[in-house]
Amino acid sequence: MQHNASLTTPYAIRNMIRNEDYTGSTSGFVPGFVQANLVILPKRYAFDFLQFCQANKKSCPIIASSQQPGAVSISNVAHDLDIRTDLPRYRIYKKGQLVDEVTNIKEYWQDDLVSFLIGSSFSFEDSLKDAGIEIRNVTEHKSVPMYITNIPSESAGIFHGNMVVSMRPMKPADAIRAIQICSRFSDVHGAPIHFGDPAAIGIKNINRPNYGESVSIKEGEVPVFWACGVTAQVAIAQAAPDFCITHSPGHMLITDIQNAHIASF
Amino acid sequence: MQHNASLTTPYAIRNMIRNEDYTGSTSGFVPGFVQANLVILPKRYAFDFLQFCQANKKSCPIIASSQQPGAVSISNVAHDLDIRTDLPRYRIYKKGQLVDEVTNIKEYWQDDLVSFLIGSSFSFEDSLKDAGIEIRNVTEHKSVPMYITNIPSESAGIFHGNMVVSMRPMKPADAIRAIQICSRFSDVHGAPIHFGDPAAIGIKNINRPNYGESVSIKEGEVPVFWACGVTAQVAIAQAAPDFCITHSPGHMLITDIQNAHIASF
Repeated sequence: MQHNASLTTPYAIRNMIRNEDYTGSTSGFVPGFVQANLVILPKRYAFDFLQFCQANKKSCPIIASSQQPGAVSISNVAHDLDIRTDLPRYRIYKKGQLVDEVTNIKEYWQDDLVSFLIGSSFSFEDSLKDAGIEIRNVTEHKSVPMYITNIPSESAGIFHGNMVVSMRPMKPADAIRAIQICSRFSDVHGAPIHFGDPAAIGIKNINRPNYGESVSIKEGEVPVFWACGVTAQVAIAQAAPDFCITHSPGHMLITDIQNAHIASF
Repeated sequence: MQHNASLTTPYAIRNMIRNEDYTGSTSGFVPGFVQANLVILPKRYAFDFLQFCQANKKSCPIIASSQQPGAVSISNVAHDLDIRTDLPRYRIYKKGQLVDEVTNIKEYWQDDLVSFLIGSSFSFEDSLKDAGIEIRNVTEHKSVPMYITNIPSESAGIFHGNMVVSMRPMKPADAIRAIQICSRFSDVHGAPIHFGDPAAIGIKNINRPNYGESVSIKEGEVPVFWACGVTAQVAIAQAAPDFCITHSPGHMLITDIQNAHIASF
């Protein structure tokens, strides 16, 4: 079976991914449905990590997490979910170091693993596009530029680090509209945390993102910065837990949750 | 009777003003209640003016207007209102020229006059202060700086002109919060229409406002611009109707409407 963009349900896409008929990026898949970042940690780290996310919910909004260690499904998020197979690509970390990248994690699965789903900017990008706002990274076919700021996250147990932000350049009028729209979506980072001067949040060179790719900023535009789920990955890298699994960047879980259903008003 | 800041109801303040015991600015009076700009025009201009306001509602949000020409009260806005006496100070215009400034308009009243109440930024300033955001013009005891932009208003009949904006400098994080808060108040100008580069909306010198007074913009702050009810006064000045009455700047009608009651969510 080849990739068929007309597959219109998240369930159909997840099945295609489960069968490893598709192992690429989920960018643009099934517009209107929430895509989630994945973090999997052994139970001994789970409470600290959840506390970290709760304390830094603009960066790390928890959509859902395992009801019990070792569970491969998560209720109310995705029908018939198997977290070990239903994302296209995973990264395996040991003591904070990337050791493998795989298309399923069956061989890495352990009974003490707890899965966390973290909201992603893919959701609000849909809503911004619906409002006629150009998303530069989409237009330029790049992954969104991300920067480590000088804004410290709240620490929790072993987890600490600075906030990572994603950046989308916009004209001020579009930025104002984007702030309004994103304010409705607190589960996917909510409103931006900054716009304008990158140095004010510790970004030295806007053209050299720490993650993703640089995008062009046109005359009359300002960079607009959103808290980013990669904040969790920076905290995990610094905490260097014995073991951790994440999705590969851009290779997300497509949930059954509609973006419209997580809007707060 | 002297000015007593402890008079806590709009009705009590309006009575004091009606008796001409107080003829000053209403800035800071009865926080939490909507203060309105006043425009009074002969009936022959009323439809065009209302159309102008409807077409430019970010600048000229109509809170209420007379149910019939010559009426001195307006239902559901202010108990026992007499529009001729219940504002501290009025301006009289003939053919677009200011000809008088008075503390009541009894001698100028005509049976064909229609009154319009237009929302004011005083309302959202209250809400911003409640959120801990500094309002520079309040801190510096100045009237807010206002600028004529290069953004044309929608024309209606004889009424046309460019949008006037008020400006409040803020740190980006406060500006984002202000955009969220003001989005709830579409009856009092709603979200800002621009931030950052003044030249992008035709403002040549931020330190030389067309109305009000210049305020300081500190390191790390950006100017944030809101559509302003003075847009109506610019349109009236350009249309130069035979006769028009407005409130004097800062000398508003204090209504019985609570700011919280005009919030859209």
